Amino acid sequence: MKKTIVFFLISLAAILMHTTLFAQKHPLAFATANDIALVKKSIPTNPLLKESFDEIKKSVDANLGKDIDVPVPKHAGGGYTHDKHKDNYTIMFNSGMLYQLTGDVKYAKLVKDLFFKYAVLNPTLKNHPEATSSSPGRIFWQALNDANWLVYAGLAFDLIHDYLTPAERAQIATGAFKPEVDYFTKDITPWFDLIHNHAVWATAGVGIVGIATDNDDYVQMALYGSKKDGKAGLTAHLDGLFSPDGYYNEGPYYTRYAVLPFYLFANAVNHYKPSLQIFERRNKILKQALEGALEQTNLDGGFYSYNDALKEKTFVSNEVVVALNIAWDVYGENPAYLPVAKAQGRVTLSKGGLGVSQALLKNKNIAPFYPYKSVVFTDGAKGDFGGVTVLRTGKDKNLTSLIFKYSSHGLSHGHYDKLNINLYDNGNEVLQDYGAARFIGIEQKWGGRYLPETKSYAQQTIAHNTVTVDETSHFNGVEAQSEKYHPIPLYNVVGNYAVQATAALDSNAYKDVKLHRSVYLITLPGTQKPLMVDFFRTLASKEHQYDLPFNYMGNLISTNFKYATHGNALQTLGLKNGYQHIWKEASANVKSPLTQFTFLNNQTFYTISGFVKDSVQVFFTRTGANDPNFNLRRESSYITRTRAKNMFALNVLEIHGNFNATSEFTTNAYSRVSSVLPVVDTDDYSGAEVVIDGKHLMVFQSNKIFDNKKIHQLIINGKAYNWQGPFVVYLENKKL
Amino acid sequence: MKKTIVFFLISLAAILMHTTLFAQKHPLAFATANDIALVKKSIPTNPLLKESFDEIKKSVDANLGKDIDVPVPKHAGGGYTHDKHKDNYTIMFNSGMLYQLTGDVKYAKLVKDLFFKYAVLNPTLKNHPEATSSSPGRIFWQALNDANWLVYAGLAFDLIHDYLTPAERAQIATGAFKPEVDYFTKDITPWFDLIHNHAVWATAGVGIVGIATDNDDYVQMALYGSKKDGKAGLTAHLDGLFSPDGYYNEGPYYTRYAVLPFYLFANAVNHYKPSLQIFERRNKILKQALEGALEQTNLDGGFYSYNDALKEKTFVSNEVVVALNIAWDVYGENPAYLPVAKAQGRVTLSKGGLGVSQALLKNKNIAPFYPYKSVVFTDGAKGDFGGVTVLRTGKDKNLTSLIFKYSSHGLSHGHYDKLNINLYDNGNEVLQDYGAARFIGIEQKWGGRYLPETKSYAQQTIAHNTVTVDETSHFNGVEAQSEKYHPIPLYNVVGNYAVQATAALDSNAYKDVKLHRSVYLITLPGTQKPLMVDFFRTLASKEHQYDLPFNYMGNLISTNFKYATHGNALQTLGLKNGYQHIWKEASANVKSPLTQFTFLNNQTFYTISGFVKDSVQVFFTRTGANDPNFNLRRESSYITRTRAKNMFALNVLEIHGNFNATSEFTTNAYSRVSSVLPVVDTDDYSGAEVVIDGKHLMVFQSNKIFDNKKIHQLIINGKAYNWQGPFVVYLENKKL
Repeated sequence: MKKTIVFFLISLAAILMHTTLFAQKHPLAFATANDIALVKKSIPTNPLLKESFDEIKKSVDANLGKDIDVPVPKHAGGGYTHDKHKDNYTIMFNSGMLYQLTGDVKYAKLVKDLFFKYAVLNPTLKNHPEATSSSPGRIFWQALNDANWLVYAGLAFDLIHDYLTPAERAQIATGAFKPEVDYFTKDITPWFDLIHNHAVWATAGVGIVGIATDNDDYVQMALYGSKKDGKAGLTAHLDGLFSPDGYYNEGPYYTRYAVLPFYLFANAVNHYKPSLQIFERRNKILKQALEGALEQTNLDGGFYSYNDALKEKTFVSNEVVVALNIAWDVYGENPAYLPVAKAQGRVTLSKGGLGVSQALLKNKNIAPFYPYKSVVFTDGAKGDFGGVTVLRTGKDKNLTSLIFKYSSHGLSHGHYDKLNINLYDNGNEVLQDYGAARFIGIEQKWGGRYLPETKSYAQQTIAHNTVTVDETSHFNGVEAQSEKYHPIPLYNVVGNYAVQATAALDSNAYKDVKLHRSVYLITLPGTQKPLMVDFFRTLASKEHQYDLPFNYMGNLISTNFKYATHGNALQTLGLKNGYQHIWKEASANVKSPLTQFTFLNNQTFYTISGFVKDSVQVFFTRTGANDPNFNLRRESSYITRTRAKNMFALNVLEIHGNFNATSEFTTNAYSRVSSVLPVVDTDDYSGAEVVIDGKHLMVFQSNKIFDNKKIHQLIINGKAYNWQGPFVVYLENKKL
Repeated sequence: MKKTIVFFLISLAAILMHTTLFAQKHPLAFATANDIALVKKSIPTNPLLKESFDEIKKSVDANLGKDIDVPVPKHAGGGYTHDKHKDNYTIMFNSGMLYQLTGDVKYAKLVKDLFFKYAVLNPTLKNHPEATSSSPGRIFWQALNDANWLVYAGLAFDLIHDYLTPAERAQIATGAFKPEVDYFTKDITPWFDLIHNHAVWATAGVGIVGIATDNDDYVQMALYGSKKDGKAGLTAHLDGLFSPDGYYNEGPYYTRYAVLPFYLFANAVNHYKPSLQIFERRNKILKQALEGALEQTNLDGGFYSYNDALKEKTFVSNEVVVALNIAWDVYGENPAYLPVAKAQGRVTLSKGGLGVSQALLKNKNIAPFYPYKSVVFTDGAKGDFGGVTVLRTGKDKNLTSLIFKYSSHGLSHGHYDKLNINLYDNGNEVLQDYGAARFIGIEQKWGGRYLPETKSYAQQTIAHNTVTVDETSHFNGVEAQSEKYHPIPLYNVVGNYAVQATAALDSNAYKDVKLHRSVYLITLPGTQKPLMVDFFRTLASKEHQYDLPFNYMGNLISTNFKYATHGNALQTLGLKNGYQHIWKEASANVKSPLTQFTFLNNQTFYTISGFVKDSVQVFFTRTGANDPNFNLRRESSYITRTRAKNMFALNVLEIHGNFNATSEFTTNAYSRVSSVLPVVDTDDYSGAEVVIDGKHLMVFQSNKIFDNKKIHQLIINGKAYNWQGPFVVYLENKKL
């Protein structure tokens, strides 16, 4: 007992010093006293706010009067101590909110009691027994989760700040917070100072604790890095983790994750030091980040699953609720957010949440979906590290979205997927990115961590709708190599045009092979659904094997070629680089000139028509080989294998017809394409003729000059084609 | 021309004779003039009715003024001529309705013009060029579709009856209808006189045409069979195709299909000859049939997929809309139907449709789901051919439904699935029946017909959650054999009890082996989700191989035993009887005493804990082997293989926990069962002890005496267990 008191007195002195210098009126980290008063007044008359309040109250009330366990850390993700500590920080934050909103001290006491237990536990902690990552945690198996704890515990402390006596505050600051903050800022400083989503959480945690405990030293480290030199911390993250248009290097799934600490911390900083104008930084980069993430969702809210991503995650997740509600407050009302807010069905108990809930009440005609449009994202802090283009056509439920990825690697969650495409249509994923192999939060599945198959399959090139050369992944699957390079965007024409286009060149994924892909989304007159014309050129000095998969989702309906199924015994497609996880279900050798493959995804047919120069091998495959723990989904692919020096893969994807099992009516189940032929393929130009419904569609592109002003002329079969800019599309001799 | 006129005159005389005797006021087949007047008046003020009207009007208006094609039959299901003729009869009926509802003769003329084309075409038709079935069609590839045509064309004729001149009526009756009716009633009489769903359509077609064309001869054949002796026709179908409680021999998927012609024809008969009281027949058997079908749906409206069934079909299909709307009219308002009607979102333009739409408008608090309850269906016209039991617990979204099938075969759409179980939970299919392999209406997939894999896999025993002996299907897969027999129900205790039970004995599926299965659905005090305890006994004279699959849907999470995956090369589980379609993904040899297997289906965990006597083989499998046209889905199974003379398979299925990827919270991911042991297994009694959460659950059953009054006593480990009736369940020495 004596020892504790001595310890306490020393710490109190340290805390009081900071308190004197930077005294603030609390709460201010999550919401100010004024915000709280507004929300409190509105709860009785605002159903959504009341629902959110009731939900929180119900969850906290169930814990009142209980001796809540603060266990010695033992289990990995999904296990008891992991979930308990996660549960605890949620309860602490929620109970703190209830204290503010009801004034009932029982809620403050619940938080205080838990803090006292952590004040006893935390000083005793060493690395977590299940720690396997390079940044081990203490309360949790990885430091990232400890950062989560700091964020919410910091917010909770701020909410009950005025309920605590100065001595109690010091006791908690010293016992519960200091060991964690010191661990982050002194022991694993390199991790804390990274420009990476983990560090975003870490700085948010330290910063929010600083604001809550009136410790400006913490705040400065959180804003500017452990050395306070601006090379790390929130400001460096805002400047370095997003491209100028808000694209987040790890992709939309992780943008979702990162926006939460960004918004929570920025919000707290904004209350703490409004003069910093943190939300205005870099042309409102946090607004762009949020909207960039929303723009990269499917109609059901699911984030595009490129890079490591779990398909179950949608924009109804808590992170996006919080960010959207804060954005509503700091950036002003935005009707585009309302379909998302409506799907979320809950709001934060803050000024922004109040605003959103009022707007949802007031607006009788909320659009069914976020106002998705075609969009070009640059990657890299300066916007010069490639990017991602989303070509779109169609309205509401009929939206077609084609994603073309030529961004940089995406840190540890990046995949070897240069020039990959993905297709979503009518709200369904049609040409998929596998995402990651992981059962988040399920302890039996390796503690909820990323599973080994993420690396051995999901990240490999063959798992993507792009070319694998010689059964070897891009950059030989070496992250450090891949991080160095990015493809070069050649042109992007997006918007409400009959022809939208995107093209990029990669010169680094393979030593001997350049990859040049151009994708055209063409809406023919009088048709609803677009046609995709896909030019994939490889440029090499010698012959290689080129595998181009279309990871289709759906049922094989028909092919224009015979194939042999390997009905009695399955073999894998290869031995490594992801190939070892792929079963060959069927194989074919197809001779010139055309492959056609029709599949059904939900109620829509899709046909891929591909030109065949001499002959190609075709494989129908299924994932699941060498999967000792059943970690992989069983997914299908249609892979075309070409041996050539330079390949010119020319594929046309049609979206057609309708299958209605309920009414038993099927329309347009057959492809309208009768021929796909290259008409030119030189260093300077590539061009194709597609015959569809008997009409001739000609697509030409320049392979070298992408200037919008440049005039080109090609003479094909005695006929002259003239155009300006990098490409042109003709239908029956008329430019589209 | 001359020839046609002569032909016409003769026929006219024949028609006029009938007309004189049985003149009726038209319309009356689908709706009476009074009904039409009511509907017409209500359309402007009733949104749902108006929507249905507008939809029909839009579809018909698009065809006005066009020369609609009535092509010479050529294609199978999904092909042009197939879909065109289907489209035509729909347009004819809808346009007839519009004529009645608007009085605009352009709609009547559209119908008449089409009829004139059919009057030219139909007399020329021989068997359809794509006819492959034993009952070939003429307009379509199978006679069944011709029957569909007759039904709708008959209804359409009735609707424009008064618009046509007597000569026009005769021309259509003779040209369009007579060749089809004669073909049915004279050429393929055995088919017309079957007690089978095809014949239900056939008689409805002939009967409705009879009513529409004032031809009572047709009506009599339709009501009583081609010989008018009552051994066939509608009356025989009503008496013979349903069990006394409305179970339809082919299962709920086909009940859906059959209710349409039943209701349409009965409705027409009811208007034509109310004195027959056709809807009252057999204690309102048609009401019971409809409700039996609804009772056998999942929360999403999907029909239980046992027997040949396509999972895409739900109760929103047109057949059920029509039947439900007529039932509302003839059997009176029923709030239980409203959740179904609401999901259907459309009504027929009839008195019943009007009533349903008004009820939907009026009722502000429609229940979210049909009022599902536990239910026992008997099979067979007398209710003595086995049956199907559905054990249920939980409300609304939390509904758990366990289906136990001990019915007779189910005609040509039956499977070899004696004592099969299926599980639906929280609206998801968890232990599945594969259903049928078919892409209905997709021409490329064998003309939309049942695919060969329906017979070679989906109907075989190994595709089901029941025992396959010696890799041979029940009745050796011979339909004629299977049709002869049915299991014997032993007891059914269903309702709002802590323990629900169902048990049956099959003595015919195998020559040497009796199959005895008892399933207990136990709700332990203080728990939400039930526990399934499954006793599967086999009784034989010599040793056999017993395979018991659980065709689980979801992801393998964990097992308590080690297994080897066949990661580099897959082999099939066997060579025939469905085994040739199954890949062995993993195998294990598990020693006594316990297998545990946990999987995740959506957000819920399921664990199957099985007692192992000495050792068992376990296989994790996947369908898709020997599937040359990619007709099969890739589905998983967990199969336990036992070699024994008499097997006592003792399995406990737990439903537990929650996985929420959005919030990243996982609860109760682990099984609570620590031990499953048989405590008695004699000719007279079987019993098991299950330790769950440290508590002892004892389940005892009599294997021979199922009398509810009989008192039993068992002494186990010196402790006496006394009970009355066929079984008892104790928890910690207290009877449940």
